[in-house]
Amino acid sequence: MESELKPMDSEQLREYAHKMVDFIADYYKMIESFPVLSQVKPGYLKELLPDSAPCKPENLEDVFDDIRQKIIPGITHWQSPDYFAYYPSNSSTAGFLGEMLSAGFNIIGFSWIASPAATELEMIVLDWFAKMLKLPEQFLSTGQGGGVIQGTASEAVLVVLLAARDKILLKAGRKSLEKLVVYCSDQTHSAMQKACQIAGIFPENFRVLKTDSSSNYALLPEVLSEAISKDLSFGLIPFFLCATVGTTSSAAVDPLLKLGNISKVHDMWFHVDAAHAGSACICPEYRHHIDGVEEADSFCMNAHKWFLTNFDCSLLWVKDRSALIQSLSTNPEFLKNKASQENSVVDFKDWQIPLGRRFRSLKLWMVLRLYGLENLQSYIREHIKLAEQFEQLISSDSRFEIVAPRTFSLVCFRLLPPLYDQDDGYKLNYNLLDAVNRSGKIFMSHTVLSGKFVLRFAIGAPLTEERHVVAAWKVLQDEATILLRGS
Amino acid sequence: MESELKPMDSEQLREYAHKMVDFIADYYKMIESFPVLSQVKPGYLKELLPDSAPCKPENLEDVFDDIRQKIIPGITHWQSPDYFAYYPSNSSTAGFLGEMLSAGFNIIGFSWIASPAATELEMIVLDWFAKMLKLPEQFLSTGQGGGVIQGTASEAVLVVLLAARDKILLKAGRKSLEKLVVYCSDQTHSAMQKACQIAGIFPENFRVLKTDSSSNYALLPEVLSEAISKDLSFGLIPFFLCATVGTTSSAAVDPLLKLGNISKVHDMWFHVDAAHAGSACICPEYRHHIDGVEEADSFCMNAHKWFLTNFDCSLLWVKDRSALIQSLSTNPEFLKNKASQENSVVDFKDWQIPLGRRFRSLKLWMVLRLYGLENLQSYIREHIKLAEQFEQLISSDSRFEIVAPRTFSLVCFRLLPPLYDQDDGYKLNYNLLDAVNRSGKIFMSHTVLSGKFVLRFAIGAPLTEERHVVAAWKVLQDEATILLRGS
Repeated sequence: MESELKPMDSEQLREYAHKMVDFIADYYKMIESFPVLSQVKPGYLKELLPDSAPCKPENLEDVFDDIRQKIIPGITHWQSPDYFAYYPSNSSTAGFLGEMLSAGFNIIGFSWIASPAATELEMIVLDWFAKMLKLPEQFLSTGQGGGVIQGTASEAVLVVLLAARDKILLKAGRKSLEKLVVYCSDQTHSAMQKACQIAGIFPENFRVLKTDSSSNYALLPEVLSEAISKDLSFGLIPFFLCATVGTTSSAAVDPLLKLGNISKVHDMWFHVDAAHAGSACICPEYRHHIDGVEEADSFCMNAHKWFLTNFDCSLLWVKDRSALIQSLSTNPEFLKNKASQENSVVDFKDWQIPLGRRFRSLKLWMVLRLYGLENLQSYIREHIKLAEQFEQLISSDSRFEIVAPRTFSLVCFRLLPPLYDQDDGYKLNYNLLDAVNRSGKIFMSHTVLSGKFVLRFAIGAPLTEERHVVAAWKVLQDEATILLRGS
Repeated sequence: MESELKPMDSEQLREYAHKMVDFIADYYKMIESFPVLSQVKPGYLKELLPDSAPCKPENLEDVFDDIRQKIIPGITHWQSPDYFAYYPSNSSTAGFLGEMLSAGFNIIGFSWIASPAATELEMIVLDWFAKMLKLPEQFLSTGQGGGVIQGTASEAVLVVLLAARDKILLKAGRKSLEKLVVYCSDQTHSAMQKACQIAGIFPENFRVLKTDSSSNYALLPEVLSEAISKDLSFGLIPFFLCATVGTTSSAAVDPLLKLGNISKVHDMWFHVDAAHAGSACICPEYRHHIDGVEEADSFCMNAHKWFLTNFDCSLLWVKDRSALIQSLSTNPEFLKNKASQENSVVDFKDWQIPLGRRFRSLKLWMVLRLYGLENLQSYIREHIKLAEQFEQLISSDSRFEIVAPRTFSLVCFRLLPPLYDQDDGYKLNYNLLDAVNRSGKIFMSHTVLSGKFVLRFAIGAPLTEERHVVAAWKVLQDEATILLRGS
């Protein structure tokens, strides 16, 4: 390689990539042997790697050695069957193959012309998915709407917020920005706040409406109505509502139909974030959680969470694509081409923040084809069944309590504090979480609900089976015993 | 698979992924046999694929058949050696291996804790790269600044624009948004305009300063100074300047030092977009093009263009990371963890638009290690040498003219129009471009400079050799002969 660099030689690609396949397959074979949460200390890697890039090429075997010895210890293993933190981030054989192929073609599908198959497959697969979710027809590409793959749900909510902002400012004038009000609940993902920061919504006009256990942390329509009335009386302009199906903290479900009706009355953009729980809605018995989506202007779910499609693959549907395009399009000379100028094609560059985009529909297409709808439904049901079992285990031990009702595959619980505990078990549960995570045997994360420190047990890793859930429960019980003995 | 879905089985992954490796290696072997620009018509794929997702799983071999027969005809082959459009989008064996590994781990590195190796390797590799470019020390992670991988240069300019906006609004008050002025040239990438739209900069305050052939389409410092003075006299607030090293149209280079000095005087944020040409600056003989970068607040180059690192991998460095974090951070309970709370780590979620992020530093690390700096320099030099040769070929045919001087590996030229041509050769060159692209033999794109329709010949695909450049020139000559005969 030193004499003449051939950075893309098909036979070298073949040879090296076969080695990488074996490396990755072996990783999955061994994945249970690693501590789930990386146990390294901040700055560990700097001490292990050189200060500058090499001048001369190095061997692939040396790189593999470094990955084994230096990188893997710093990995938190999201694909481990013992991973129960945050929400899952699924990898699968089909999703992985799709990523490989996308990286192989390495096309940049900003416009239709840049690779027609990339745009068209995305439209087709998003239509397939909309039908699986029984979304209203207006979300299909055949009408005024359509679906698009965004990187993340954060980008999805940002682009629709921008579309809604610019639509209202066009009527009310740019200087009305200071009057625009956004509504969500205190359970809405922080991506909503970030989108507001980016879009320049005035912080004092970002309404984080309170929820509590009486509604299982769902946003109450009357709370929304009241807030809107108050804002209107101050001359403000309510323009955007974000509801969630499966909140990040406790998988709470906002009542879409009633919230949607309110937003209609006030001519607000209604966005539904079903990033996590949207996957479950391909099963008829869970579909009712998105009843009311017909009132939504936009709907988002992440195929990269619980749908076996490697990150990133966030699906966004809108009813009115022209609002997105109005807000996000540019038309520089160097990108002009006949197909775009004739308006005969979709150019997804105008539906998203970046210009360039990967051929991400390949992986979703491969997941749908290699597994099929029925298998995918079984996959979801299996995780929910495991969550039910875990919930029963918790309930069987009187030292613990379930803190919020389980709807999908997330269980929120805590260790009950001793009577007269100073902080109502906050520190106790903090320490329990810390202990189980430091054990390396499982990885969980937490939230705070009504001031209580709550442990989240989120099932959804593709490799997780009943035995892992049972073993995790044992780890929790053992650590709880140790902690309670100490306190 | 029907009875029990094992979506992540290490042995099935191994078996299927080996097949995919061969499929992709075979694709590269055959890549010259495909029309470079896809020749399909809008809507072609809808007629070839079913209307809905399958209920039952399908076979991998059927999927491969569909990719061969239905997808590949709709691909525009960015990795073809005969691809000379836009700017290149490099794939390489090392970059591909990095993508595979990143998809294999499939971690979501939003915070340090989510996989320490992902954050730390990114910091290390961006420091390596900064040293290769001889960026000022303030851009290194060891001080107040640092580097971060963004998806695209569009996201890079957006995040620094937001940081700059929020910094000034903090002083001047939110309502001053209507006074903020952004400066760039008419050669600046459309990403700047889009970032302004997103950030809510008033369209009338977006200054697109004129350039012309007298400065080879570089932004003149006196033009900038004049515009700033005028805006100040109207009570406006100049706050952001974007300069470019290697513009999209003609690879023009703005004079960083003088522009930077002006921005300093007016306390403006100075961003340098070297998305394309930054790669060349690892060669000592081209480094002078970024002289003056020491005046910049932020600097961006795309490793996914001309640096053998598969898309997406846009490198952004800032001198003051706190400005980014101030603008883009959120701190929800569900992401809190000891390392972040103790401020002992970097959480890249606060340096970017999305929350989730892939382990993208792996591919850049593998490119740097498997090829080494010297080989990478040779790679760049080889392409520039080919561009020189192409330029000589153009100059040897009196029917053509070079429209803008060549600095790197892009040649801007056109077919000279006959005397008294109505539109000064616009249609003639439009037709020439259309003809060569329809031939399927090569793919080029265009721009307009000083009203002239200009053909862009951008060399930089990893497989391009001298013979491809010579053959492309033959295609151009032949089509020109046909066109001129007809006119």
